[in-house]
Amino acid sequence: MQDFEFHNPTKIIFGRGKENLIGKVLKEDGIKKVLFVYGQSSIKKTGLYDRVVNSLKENGIEFVEHGGVKPNPVLSHTREGIEKAKKEKVDAILSVGGGSVLDEGKAIAVGAVADKDVWQFFKGEPITDALPNYTILTLAATGSEMNGYAVITNEDTQEKLSISSILIYPKVSIFNPELTFSVSPQYQAYAAVDAIAHTIEWYFTCNVCPNLQNRLVESIVKTVMETTEKILENPYDYNARAEFMWAATLALNGITRTGYGGGVYVNHMIAHSLGALYDLPHGACLSIVIPAWMWWYKDKNPTQFERFAKEIFGLNKKEEGIKALKSWFKKIGAPVSLQDGNIPSSDIDKIANHVYHTTAVLWGLDKVYTVDKIKEILYLALRSNIE
Amino acid sequence: MQDFEFHNPTKIIFGRGKENLIGKVLKEDGIKKVLFVYGQSSIKKTGLYDRVVNSLKENGIEFVEHGGVKPNPVLSHTREGIEKAKKEKVDAILSVGGGSVLDEGKAIAVGAVADKDVWQFFKGEPITDALPNYTILTLAATGSEMNGYAVITNEDTQEKLSISSILIYPKVSIFNPELTFSVSPQYQAYAAVDAIAHTIEWYFTCNVCPNLQNRLVESIVKTVMETTEKILENPYDYNARAEFMWAATLALNGITRTGYGGGVYVNHMIAHSLGALYDLPHGACLSIVIPAWMWWYKDKNPTQFERFAKEIFGLNKKEEGIKALKSWFKKIGAPVSLQDGNIPSSDIDKIANHVYHTTAVLWGLDKVYTVDKIKEILYLALRSNIE
Repeated sequence: MQDFEFHNPTKIIFGRGKENLIGKVLKEDGIKKVLFVYGQSSIKKTGLYDRVVNSLKENGIEFVEHGGVKPNPVLSHTREGIEKAKKEKVDAILSVGGGSVLDEGKAIAVGAVADKDVWQFFKGEPITDALPNYTILTLAATGSEMNGYAVITNEDTQEKLSISSILIYPKVSIFNPELTFSVSPQYQAYAAVDAIAHTIEWYFTCNVCPNLQNRLVESIVKTVMETTEKILENPYDYNARAEFMWAATLALNGITRTGYGGGVYVNHMIAHSLGALYDLPHGACLSIVIPAWMWWYKDKNPTQFERFAKEIFGLNKKEEGIKALKSWFKKIGAPVSLQDGNIPSSDIDKIANHVYHTTAVLWGLDKVYTVDKIKEILYLALRSNIE
Repeated sequence: MQDFEFHNPTKIIFGRGKENLIGKVLKEDGIKKVLFVYGQSSIKKTGLYDRVVNSLKENGIEFVEHGGVKPNPVLSHTREGIEKAKKEKVDAILSVGGGSVLDEGKAIAVGAVADKDVWQFFKGEPITDALPNYTILTLAATGSEMNGYAVITNEDTQEKLSISSILIYPKVSIFNPELTFSVSPQYQAYAAVDAIAHTIEWYFTCNVCPNLQNRLVESIVKTVMETTEKILENPYDYNARAEFMWAATLALNGITRTGYGGGVYVNHMIAHSLGALYDLPHGACLSIVIPAWMWWYKDKNPTQFERFAKEIFGLNKKEEGIKALKSWFKKIGAPVSLQDGNIPSSDIDKIANHVYHTTAVLWGLDKVYTVDKIKEILYLALRSNIE
């Protein structure tokens, strides 16, 4: 086991109708006025918006709205939120939505109490303060509801970068699996890919790989696959939605990482560039990258790749495990090649340079992931290169 | 999935030599004076006592000692600690030891800020305040280092009861697996039984039993068994000690319980009476009770018992799984019958009445676990009744 620290102070309230508790939760914490962050119109269609507003009003919580968060949340809209939060002197952020909404909410929480522009924190400036943030989750995938990460895209510079701090863990996150009944099959597939990615990144890149963590990762991967198949068959399967939701949260709440040595989020690194350059959904970027990266990396950690093939698919060879995962991504409707994502193969040079200069250097991965190595991985992401 | 709330604010610092950080950790939290709670002489022999004292002094933390905590911590000694804490006006508790020391430290944390006698909280009085408590763990088993429980025995009334509150989760718990190198094979066996018990109690008594939670439980049980065998072979196996430690903590930090419906700690209920009446180690009481209770209960939740046999032992029948677990307890040196624990069979009536009147009623389990039913279970705990 590698040395580690683990600290996850987020409180989870899980179950049917629990979103109606939000006003009470905020009141108990002494919150008087929130910035109510949300995405597109869907929370109004489903009635969730009204239930949240009622709960806030019943408990005397004032709110200022900040709707219109994009699926890949952008810096300009985040800055608008920060201005509102400062002007209106809110004392907390309430984010209602999926990972994008939660991430923008966290970035606003940081920016609202800072003198500096918020993007500086994404470029490495340490976070020393933040407003408390609360969430109601409508799409499980990113794990943002129970971690200290947030990812924002700067449209001007085409950079997609992240912040990390104990100060932006949500104080309370509310999960009602029924709120995810309306998640489309396509987005459910992307969500499944994202949750799997969060656990297997460290599983494959570990140099200390304890059996306990391996087993926890495999438990989550199996559950994500099993429940996704059930959800695609019946979107109203409460138990499948619920188990998926909690599995996706556990995938990136820090537990699976404890004790692994050497882990890195290399697939996320490449996927973030695809997201920034082509505005593709995050899960779709990952499903394009993962099989290619796995193939490229498989001989660097053969024991873990063999274990994966065996435990997840009952197969004997590491290559078979990778192909089986790729087939499963395809089966659930996730893209598995650059072509599937409408990314021209002639862009490989551009993408590789983008990955290297925006993230590899920032994350200290540039020694291993040179432009040439990233190009090798991207070539493997061309259709028919892993069959 | 059953509705649930999960909130575990304890920070874990894990690795070699991390006990030396304790003074710094306390200082950063603004603590000036602690009650330093520990057990018998072992922490002085190993040098841990000196390292802790040095770290406290280097960081200007004053301390008052409260040594001599017993393996089944008792109320009288807890009350002495509370008096010291009040008189010396400490602002935190520092517990260095195993689960017993940590539990007594938590009870002192509650009693030190209360007008009432501390035993009233064990009899059901709600906890509304507590001093912060910090821990350095020297024996992993009870999970006390990352949960809100504490168990104390009242020697006068022969009751062994527990408290539960978000206010007594340790603020920070420090784990150095090397500190457990000196745990004897016998206590390692008891620790393994305890950790397994913490996960399987809800696994077998659930009425909603999600696959995700089942898999997490099985991950922990497999790890506890695998690492215990390695530790019994080589007590200085760092990785085995480390994985065991973290698995035992995860077994009762709340994660495995999330989403299970209907779970109860019935084996603990019976084992607590054996502990109170015969002053046997907690793990030994559990290894006597568990196979008997499993046999008695197996047809009430056959799917889970079949799953257990299959996943843990690769066996097809639920009865075979129970026998295999009993054999494994025996193999590691844990007692598996009342006779093994030197408890006369003529005491069965007395024990059953004790269980019923001290705990079954208090926990609301008296409808199912009548005196007669508890006697049935205890009869199954006689040697040769499950072979």
